[in-house]
Amino acid sequence: MDYKKVTENATPEETAAMPRGIPLLKDELDIVIPTIRNLDFLEMWRPFFEPYHLIIVQDGDPSKTINVPDGFDYELYNRNDINRILGPKASCISFKDSACRCFGYMVSKKKYIFTIDDDCFVGKDPSGKPINALEQHIKNILSPSTPFFFNTLYDPFREGADFVRGYPFSLREGVPTAVSHGLWLNIPDYDAPTQLVKPRERNTRYVDMVLTIPKGTLFPMCGMNLAFDRHLIGPAMYFGLMGDGQPIGRYDDMWAGWCTKVICDHLNLGVKTGLPYIFHSKASNPFVNLKKEYKGIFWQEDIIPFFQAVTLPKECTTVQECYIELSKQVKEKLSKVDPYFDKLADAMVTWIEAWDELNPAGAAVANGKA
Amino acid sequence: MDYKKVTENATPEETAAMPRGIPLLKDELDIVIPTIRNLDFLEMWRPFFEPYHLIIVQDGDPSKTINVPDGFDYELYNRNDINRILGPKASCISFKDSACRCFGYMVSKKKYIFTIDDDCFVGKDPSGKPINALEQHIKNILSPSTPFFFNTLYDPFREGADFVRGYPFSLREGVPTAVSHGLWLNIPDYDAPTQLVKPRERNTRYVDMVLTIPKGTLFPMCGMNLAFDRHLIGPAMYFGLMGDGQPIGRYDDMWAGWCTKVICDHLNLGVKTGLPYIFHSKASNPFVNLKKEYKGIFWQEDIIPFFQAVTLPKECTTVQECYIELSKQVKEKLSKVDPYFDKLADAMVTWIEAWDELNPAGAAVANGKA
Repeated sequence: MDYKKVTENATPEETAAMPRGIPLLKDELDIVIPTIRNLDFLEMWRPFFEPYHLIIVQDGDPSKTINVPDGFDYELYNRNDINRILGPKASCISFKDSACRCFGYMVSKKKYIFTIDDDCFVGKDPSGKPINALEQHIKNILSPSTPFFFNTLYDPFREGADFVRGYPFSLREGVPTAVSHGLWLNIPDYDAPTQLVKPRERNTRYVDMVLTIPKGTLFPMCGMNLAFDRHLIGPAMYFGLMGDGQPIGRYDDMWAGWCTKVICDHLNLGVKTGLPYIFHSKASNPFVNLKKEYKGIFWQEDIIPFFQAVTLPKECTTVQECYIELSKQVKEKLSKVDPYFDKLADAMVTWIEAWDELNPAGAAVANGKA
Repeated sequence: MDYKKVTENATPEETAAMPRGIPLLKDELDIVIPTIRNLDFLEMWRPFFEPYHLIIVQDGDPSKTINVPDGFDYELYNRNDINRILGPKASCISFKDSACRCFGYMVSKKKYIFTIDDDCFVGKDPSGKPINALEQHIKNILSPSTPFFFNTLYDPFREGADFVRGYPFSLREGVPTAVSHGLWLNIPDYDAPTQLVKPRERNTRYVDMVLTIPKGTLFPMCGMNLAFDRHLIGPAMYFGLMGDGQPIGRYDDMWAGWCTKVICDHLNLGVKTGLPYIFHSKASNPFVNLKKEYKGIFWQEDIIPFFQAVTLPKECTTVQECYIELSKQVKEKLSKVDPYFDKLADAMVTWIEAWDELNPAGAAVANGKA
């Protein structure tokens, strides 16, 4: 059944040869990239990303200079900048971990965010055409989601598709889409044990599909290739305390995904997954990953039942209110798993305080004052 | 993004040219076909279906002779046979509606059922290869399902795929798969209003994917291309009262799907959808369909919230017990929508009585006596 495997990324030349359409949401979307190295990978993305503003969050040594290819419009923040801007609240932003990316979400002034890792290249569809991942994310975000009932032909808003027989008509308007979760060709997003067991496994299957993750269903959200609506869900996109000084890593996006999904479910917002694919170029070291992950592998056995059981009171009508309530429940229910969660619950509150400080208009809306 | 559209079915010659592998589950699976006409369509399926036993349920005039192409092993039941075998309980089997197919599920002596409509031809994958739908259904049914958490690379048991980072290890064994729901190229399974609005829409997108429908999520189950494990879920596969003498049609498979899904969720069984595709050759008349459907279009607005809210007591540990309990709740909650549901609830009980009569061993197991 593997009629066509996708095993190569697009070259900069192939991408450059693509017709440049009108860039969608050019003034309403920021691209957030966490990095510790020169951003040569942007060369591959030039035709797709050049019209947009980039927010680069430099992790690790702030004295190091990160080179950004010519022609890109960007702002760059290193650890010194984060400390200066957030003051004591900078403690909620992780260091030496890609979780630091969420600082970029906070300082953005745009409605939409696309975030991508610097080892993600342009993928190809099975016909060999370079995939404009950003354009597909924007399509996903701008069309409604259908979380209350499953449509067997998947995204009913896509050209050539619709709702099938038996789909209730009252649910066909859908709900606003808050999150678009994209996937990865080549190196799949596996945990350390799976990497160790299947070192040669590559994802070569291009599944031509986008779907809404049903209400009440959790999923493992990967931060490698992700877009969201900051105004709808931004304050829930906190990537937690990871890396330097923390007992855990590689669960930053998972944490954000669990929190985001339960809040989207509560607020009747949609989360989509599927297209677009990026080409994930290199596997991280499974031994290093195992060290970062191993507590998470235990803890997630308690964390996931916790999130599956979470209910938010109907008085919580903003993302901030939901998130603060969630932080209380984390403290109450997960601190007994490990004292780390007590610290994390506090950081969740700090994050919201910092978010509202940098986004005063949103905070006012959130508090019903605008 | 439409890199490859699938617009043709496979010819009998193309299908015949396929290598014949060992037919999986040859002695454990029956193919159930409801029909009112000669079964010439079987010619297209010969290499795939010939090794299996067919149960043909002849709808409409029992004096008509249905021709079955040479070489197929089959038993055929017309209305007279159904009346003779079930006696007064034959009232639960619909007449002049493809819902009559569920009689075939009841008389089968096998563990697995595949059911297909007689206007379904062999589809092609995007490489042009004829699709052995039955083989894919069997693969789906024989590998576990994962209803408790969404895997973003879809079926983790498929070759080249696995569980992604963040998927709890305690859930990776999965649960038994009870149902495999296949899809349709060419004519999509639309309701009458959508057929009327989009008369020329064709499904040409081959989505190379199978997924588990998450626990707690309902879906519109189509009976056109469907496989299931009779021993696990058979008694829930009742296609209701439709057609002759009934106020509704074209909701037979939907009804079975809603009942089946809530019972699978209760019993921790899996339901998969996606591959395989069949090529659906002709659209039914949308005006006729509208007449059959229009009450269902109203009623489903009440039926679906009902099924979304159903809870079954933990004392119900067999499909039969779950189904009888469900019939009580239908009578209690849906009879006020229309008196039809009172009649349907009674028919649900009759169906279980008839099932147990024809399947005494299963009934004994169901009642804890074996």
